[in-house]
Amino acid sequence: MGLVVQKYGGSSVADAEGIKRVAKRIVDAKKNGNQVVVVVSAMGDTTDELIDLAGQVSPIPAGREFDMLLTAGERISMALLAMAIKNLGHEAQSFTGSQAGVITDSVHNKARIIDVTPGRIRTALDEGNIAIVAGFQGVSQDKKDITTLGRGGSDTTAVALAAALDAEVCEIYTDVDGVFTADPRVVKKARKIDWISFEDMLELASSGSKVLLHRCVEYARRYNIPIHVRSSFSGLQGTWVSNEPQGDQKVEQAIISGVAHDTSEAKITVVGVPDKPGEAANIFRAIADSQINIDMIVQNVSAASTGLTDISFTLPKTEGRKAIDALERTKAAVGFESLRYDDQIAKISLVGAGMKTNPGVTAGFFEALSDAGVNIELISTSEIRISVVTRADDVNEAVRAVHTAFGLDSDSDEAVVYGGTGR
Amino acid sequence: MGLVVQKYGGSSVADAEGIKRVAKRIVDAKKNGNQVVVVVSAMGDTTDELIDLAGQVSPIPAGREFDMLLTAGERISMALLAMAIKNLGHEAQSFTGSQAGVITDSVHNKARIIDVTPGRIRTALDEGNIAIVAGFQGVSQDKKDITTLGRGGSDTTAVALAAALDAEVCEIYTDVDGVFTADPRVVKKARKIDWISFEDMLELASSGSKVLLHRCVEYARRYNIPIHVRSSFSGLQGTWVSNEPQGDQKVEQAIISGVAHDTSEAKITVVGVPDKPGEAANIFRAIADSQINIDMIVQNVSAASTGLTDISFTLPKTEGRKAIDALERTKAAVGFESLRYDDQIAKISLVGAGMKTNPGVTAGFFEALSDAGVNIELISTSEIRISVVTRADDVNEAVRAVHTAFGLDSDSDEAVVYGGTGR
Repeated sequence: MGLVVQKYGGSSVADAEGIKRVAKRIVDAKKNGNQVVVVVSAMGDTTDELIDLAGQVSPIPAGREFDMLLTAGERISMALLAMAIKNLGHEAQSFTGSQAGVITDSVHNKARIIDVTPGRIRTALDEGNIAIVAGFQGVSQDKKDITTLGRGGSDTTAVALAAALDAEVCEIYTDVDGVFTADPRVVKKARKIDWISFEDMLELASSGSKVLLHRCVEYARRYNIPIHVRSSFSGLQGTWVSNEPQGDQKVEQAIISGVAHDTSEAKITVVGVPDKPGEAANIFRAIADSQINIDMIVQNVSAASTGLTDISFTLPKTEGRKAIDALERTKAAVGFESLRYDDQIAKISLVGAGMKTNPGVTAGFFEALSDAGVNIELISTSEIRISVVTRADDVNEAVRAVHTAFGLDSDSDEAVVYGGTGR
Repeated sequence: MGLVVQKYGGSSVADAEGIKRVAKRIVDAKKNGNQVVVVVSAMGDTTDELIDLAGQVSPIPAGREFDMLLTAGERISMALLAMAIKNLGHEAQSFTGSQAGVITDSVHNKARIIDVTPGRIRTALDEGNIAIVAGFQGVSQDKKDITTLGRGGSDTTAVALAAALDAEVCEIYTDVDGVFTADPRVVKKARKIDWISFEDMLELASSGSKVLLHRCVEYARRYNIPIHVRSSFSGLQGTWVSNEPQGDQKVEQAIISGVAHDTSEAKITVVGVPDKPGEAANIFRAIADSQINIDMIVQNVSAASTGLTDISFTLPKTEGRKAIDALERTKAAVGFESLRYDDQIAKISLVGAGMKTNPGVTAGFFEALSDAGVNIELISTSEIRISVVTRADDVNEAVRAVHTAFGLDSDSDEAVVYGGTGR
């Protein structure tokens, strides 16, 4: 008998009807002879409503209490889901993150899982139950306080439980049919990917693809848990993410897995930095001390006449204010001339393990952008990814041009169904 | 430094404004030099909304999952209350029933507290925190499952924590000014009671007074924890419930503490029961086996000519259907003739330790009812209480007549403020 972990997001359990629909699907998996563990998010807008309530009570809610508040959301959805399953004649029990043994560090609002001890889940399964587990939450190892895992945390809960229980697969149910070669809202001819490697998926996730978060894929790779991303609104096969394709998983020998884009970043340019050892270190130490993650970095060639250079980097727009403040405080020590802040940029990335052995990819990428009249402002590369920064206005045209140039367009004239069949 | 336990009901924390108002009151208690533990119920209608959701998902929600669901309510209110207190510059931490060490049996939806191990609360207090505890909930001793304590459970949580922490007082904040000599909605001249003994309060609670539940008062008496029932909408002194009046607590040497009434009961009459040993036992065994609590019982004098008698008893209207079914099943074995069901009754009770030494009380009670033209159908007495059953239509007039006859009417012409000053 196999063990399957399924994860359902908030849009799949947005109301009583959704919960009953999901319950049927879970019972089907059980009827197919599996032990089933289900990780569930809070219903629809519950989390946003709780955040709103917190804002009415306190302008800066304390982390510990904020986590206590937010975890009420999954408590509601998981209890209702267990009831709905029992109503279909199958045994089910719900478990909080703490009860399920999801042990985290103490960083409230974005805790990291450090251990999973699913003894109660194992017992519940052995007694014939379907186990329903609250996503997004855990309990801190030192203080035994309730923690939350931050955005996308329910996916990580699911993968972590799948690893601890040695599951055959972790199914991530969502409101799209799987992972696509590009965002189908931008590229009408985007194709659903049947299988993708962990490595390519990691690059897509860090390049702006929203379907799976980087942390979740990283966890799955480390413990070699195959992920199946699929729609909760249809019975279609979705996208398998794993080390190796299995069985009938179609793998086309494509050089490129997909094109991702990201408009959530901004660019800061530090102008007139003295070109001597240690200056760049000073700048990025200031940024790191403010707990800001940066993405791409480019240092211009120094102008020999002035001995000054410019350093540009990208970072999440939400961190822009904090970064500017941190840099202003170091201005005297570093001795740069000025700062420029630009949030009208987009990042476009081409991802695929095939580019390692295909030297023409970089050239093809730049040619496609050039043919589309798109100007490149920054470039960064990894072994299996090329990213460029362009004007935000150009992003849709750029993605479409690259998608076509690398032969990713769907042959079918049918529009891709985005957002599932149900809503 | 004293330790005070305060309990706030759902109407006191119905919205963000209510939570902020309550937070100020809690901080005042802390500023007065007390260690403060706060027990809080779910916000306003939250519990009803969750029950409604459960009904949409399953017609008969499983007890374990139903408790998991309902406890989300206090999780929200307690986290918000802790945030609001921290926003006022004081340290606060919230704790679930489980974290607070509220250990119960495993009877879901109406669990009983069997132990309280408030180690984490004690630590939080010693570190200077105000401790906010979820009312109404606990964790079962054997299975470590989340349980709820049933109606009025938050009051019991508060008293149980006060006992375990050896608190000076348990303050129950509500939307009325205290315990009154009668329901002020019925008797305009009802007076607020300044002090009442545990014994009299127990009798009032079991006779229909809604302010405190019997279980909570029983717990307080067992551990000798003074309760102070007061309004969260005013600063007025409320009603003290304790063994002995203390300090400036006014005690009038009244014979009678108050008049309670209850319209939630029905009367079942078993007609034509053979008057021989064991028949009454058979009837009440059938009722007990159905887990129904009955209140008053009267057996008529047997008619010598027939050898048959009638047995009447009262019970909650909500149990009426179940009791009738149970009795019908025993009809052949017991051999009674028929059943009568009457839900148009009311119970009126006179409560006061003084009646032990005042033989005229019973006569005065019956005279007052007679003068008001109220017919008595059943009578039952305890050492400090007399109860009668009348027609439901007569209840208001009967309560007013008795209240006046025993000199309980307020001297003041001011209308009693019922429902506090704020709402």
